Amino acid sequence: MPDCPGEEARTPMELYEKLNSQGDTVRSLKAAKAEKAEIDSAIQLLLKLKVDYKQMTGQEYKAGCPPSENSVIPDNETAADGVIDEDNVDPWNVSTTNAKGVDYDKLIVRFGSSKIDKELVDRIEKVSGQKAHRFLRRGIFFSHRDMHQVLDAFEKQKSFYLYTGRGPSSQAMHVGHLIPFIFTKWLQDVFDIPLVIQLTDDEKYLWKDLTLEDCHRFAVENAKDIIACGFDVNKTFIFSDLDYMGASPEFYRNVVKIQKHVTFNQVKGIFGFTDSDCIGKISFPAIQAAPSFSSSFSQIFGGRKDVQCLIPCAIDQDPYFRMTRDVAPRIGYPKPALLHSTFFPALQGAQTKMSASDANSSIFLTDTPKQIKSKVNKHAFSGGKDTIEEHRKHGGNADVDVSFMYLTFFLEDDEQLEKIKQDYTSGALLTGELKKTLIETLQPIISQHQERRKQVTDEMVQQFMTPRPLNFKL
Amino acid sequence: MPDCPGEEARTPMELYEKLNSQGDTVRSLKAAKAEKAEIDSAIQLLLKLKVDYKQMTGQEYKAGCPPSENSVIPDNETAADGVIDEDNVDPWNVSTTNAKGVDYDKLIVRFGSSKIDKELVDRIEKVSGQKAHRFLRRGIFFSHRDMHQVLDAFEKQKSFYLYTGRGPSSQAMHVGHLIPFIFTKWLQDVFDIPLVIQLTDDEKYLWKDLTLEDCHRFAVENAKDIIACGFDVNKTFIFSDLDYMGASPEFYRNVVKIQKHVTFNQVKGIFGFTDSDCIGKISFPAIQAAPSFSSSFSQIFGGRKDVQCLIPCAIDQDPYFRMTRDVAPRIGYPKPALLHSTFFPALQGAQTKMSASDANSSIFLTDTPKQIKSKVNKHAFSGGKDTIEEHRKHGGNADVDVSFMYLTFFLEDDEQLEKIKQDYTSGALLTGELKKTLIETLQPIISQHQERRKQVTDEMVQQFMTPRPLNFKL
Repeated sequence: MPDCPGEEARTPMELYEKLNSQGDTVRSLKAAKAEKAEIDSAIQLLLKLKVDYKQMTGQEYKAGCPPSENSVIPDNETAADGVIDEDNVDPWNVSTTNAKGVDYDKLIVRFGSSKIDKELVDRIEKVSGQKAHRFLRRGIFFSHRDMHQVLDAFEKQKSFYLYTGRGPSSQAMHVGHLIPFIFTKWLQDVFDIPLVIQLTDDEKYLWKDLTLEDCHRFAVENAKDIIACGFDVNKTFIFSDLDYMGASPEFYRNVVKIQKHVTFNQVKGIFGFTDSDCIGKISFPAIQAAPSFSSSFSQIFGGRKDVQCLIPCAIDQDPYFRMTRDVAPRIGYPKPALLHSTFFPALQGAQTKMSASDANSSIFLTDTPKQIKSKVNKHAFSGGKDTIEEHRKHGGNADVDVSFMYLTFFLEDDEQLEKIKQDYTSGALLTGELKKTLIETLQPIISQHQERRKQVTDEMVQQFMTPRPLNFKL
Repeated sequence: MPDCPGEEARTPMELYEKLNSQGDTVRSLKAAKAEKAEIDSAIQLLLKLKVDYKQMTGQEYKAGCPPSENSVIPDNETAADGVIDEDNVDPWNVSTTNAKGVDYDKLIVRFGSSKIDKELVDRIEKVSGQKAHRFLRRGIFFSHRDMHQVLDAFEKQKSFYLYTGRGPSSQAMHVGHLIPFIFTKWLQDVFDIPLVIQLTDDEKYLWKDLTLEDCHRFAVENAKDIIACGFDVNKTFIFSDLDYMGASPEFYRNVVKIQKHVTFNQVKGIFGFTDSDCIGKISFPAIQAAPSFSSSFSQIFGGRKDVQCLIPCAIDQDPYFRMTRDVAPRIGYPKPALLHSTFFPALQGAQTKMSASDANSSIFLTDTPKQIKSKVNKHAFSGGKDTIEEHRKHGGNADVDVSFMYLTFFLEDDEQLEKIKQDYTSGALLTGELKKTLIETLQPIISQHQERRKQVTDEMVQQFMTPRPLNFKL
């Protein structure tokens, strides 16, 4: 329906209806992956209507609560969540107006997860007997669900398995894509546990303008980059949904069980789906949920349905697993635990995450040392001052500096990192020098990845992707 | 929301909104499988509102067309279809107010299919070189889509395959369930073609209060009754969705392709799904659609995606295949052709179809000769007169007599059937005598079925249900 800009709402109910409709518009645009500018302007109108509504009624607008009565309680997790915030986080979009990036403390409150505090990091060190990974020490994995419970059980000799994944939307992976895999490999090593990695080639087919064949090909190509992270083939099963859904009756049975216990209303609330979405998207969340249950992998767990799952993933994937945790007890399975990471910022700044579809925002795993140098020097957003004189006098702002952020991800030495921060903030370290350190840190990491990837043969891929028993003690 | 009976609609728009809302109510009740009485009373109110609407506006109410403007064209196939008719036909409900049963000519118009006329029956005889099956001679298979096209191709040595199915909602199958299988076996025999039979155990789990294990067990039990119909194991593949979805990547790939090309709006229109339905139901139609495409069975068709499919089924399954035919060209596959049967009436009368969940309405495939005799004598609705004298004088009404209807399904001899009709209509044949003929017709059919079913071993079931090549020439 066309907008009628001249038509002003006259009653609270009319304004309420307009707000509902504008909320739908925002969700539709987001679901349709409309242009950012279009989404932003729709959100602006929504915010304006909300202000008008409060002025007219003295109440906050709430979806599901018409102005005359407040008896209807809205869903805890409606798609309206995030719309009024400056931060916009769902599995398909991440953006914020803040140059420091998303406010992760607020996200913890909004999502209802728990902060990974010093006590938990210390406990992970104690239970694993290993120094915490830099991603834990530096708050890159910052949020969790039920991690203490996982550790309690582990201390009583009750083990768990890891599940993470990737949506293979193209052949090109960038450094940000490595974060969950680097951390998952560390978890696998220090806890000595099995791991399943889901490649959602079906999801990418449903969401993107790609053929099934391309999505499946990307899955296999991406598997090579994942294998190059150094996973133990005896403890790791990598699967494409397009293959494994047709290779495991147990997996499909769990998908159907989940699908029976989630309504369209719920996925509409959680993911912002609309009536115009295809039925494949609407039912897909069950497919991302299924690997959270050990009975989906009878070849690995021999039919056991009680093995605890721990999912390391970026926080934008949490909606899938909130849904999974809601369903789990109703189908007789344990809830998966989670460890959430922050996003890996785009070169242009922490307002968005690095995206493979924007080549200028990304450092690809195939980039040459020269390309890395040129991209960092040319595109990495700087927190430094405009002139050397000013920088020396006032110092730079490490909190918004993308090069510094990347070093927090990739520079192992805590003391060196701290010194860089101090020197940059004081003005002793110039932007060019900071970028040089980043370039020299990234170049060998990417080169070594490329070396390892070259050694990944088709036979190795086949081995990792064959449903089979794994080697572990539970 | 509670009804507000005192609140009368004052404007056409208010009445239109009430009608929309009442239509939703009817659909929700049907989707929730509410009590028949509750559904009927909701339909009554809907009909009353439609009459009011016509009086107020001079127009017919149409969903999607508000009273002030007629520019919005409603979907061809909205769930509102059938609501205003006395006939109520969808995959989960069949009922009519007419004792003769559903008006099938009207259904052909509503569904947009074609009548199986004498010309088509003659042509099937000519092409197959066999006398037409009594189900064709007597209009029990009464409607089709693209059957002429199938025959055109067959005459040019281009063969086709058959696809039919069953929802295994219980172990108990009744005689009505045999109709599609008896006819499909005839088609397989006279055309010498391969056949796939889908057992939708996943569907039954999603719709009914049953465990996955029970649904799968019913699928295997029902397979035995199906095999007892005499299918050729070298030309027939029977599969449970719960097994085959996890045994064929090609099948799942077709499911995802279909799911990408059907929106929630469409399944809402076609099947009457609501926002409260689980996402499993919403995506299920793709799973019933997938066997319509030969590429779903690579072990049978070697990856060929162009083999024509012909689906013999009861007319209530047509919504699935209207959807399938709509999607087919968009994913590069031929549209399946269809042959539609009428419903097999309940013992109590043709207002509803025989239902296994109502034991009194059904003659089960496990009934003894004594049970058959007793059920027919006790429950079969009679078109005869109240007293012998009246019956002799005025004759009976074969059109509403359930015993006579059953004979049209099961008595092979056309002349005998015609004589029974004449004698019953004239009054020469009494209800008791008619029932006796039916009993003597059914008893050996059921007994012989039971004999053949006893001979179906677990190994035979396994053989029919193993994905494997079939023996045929295309």
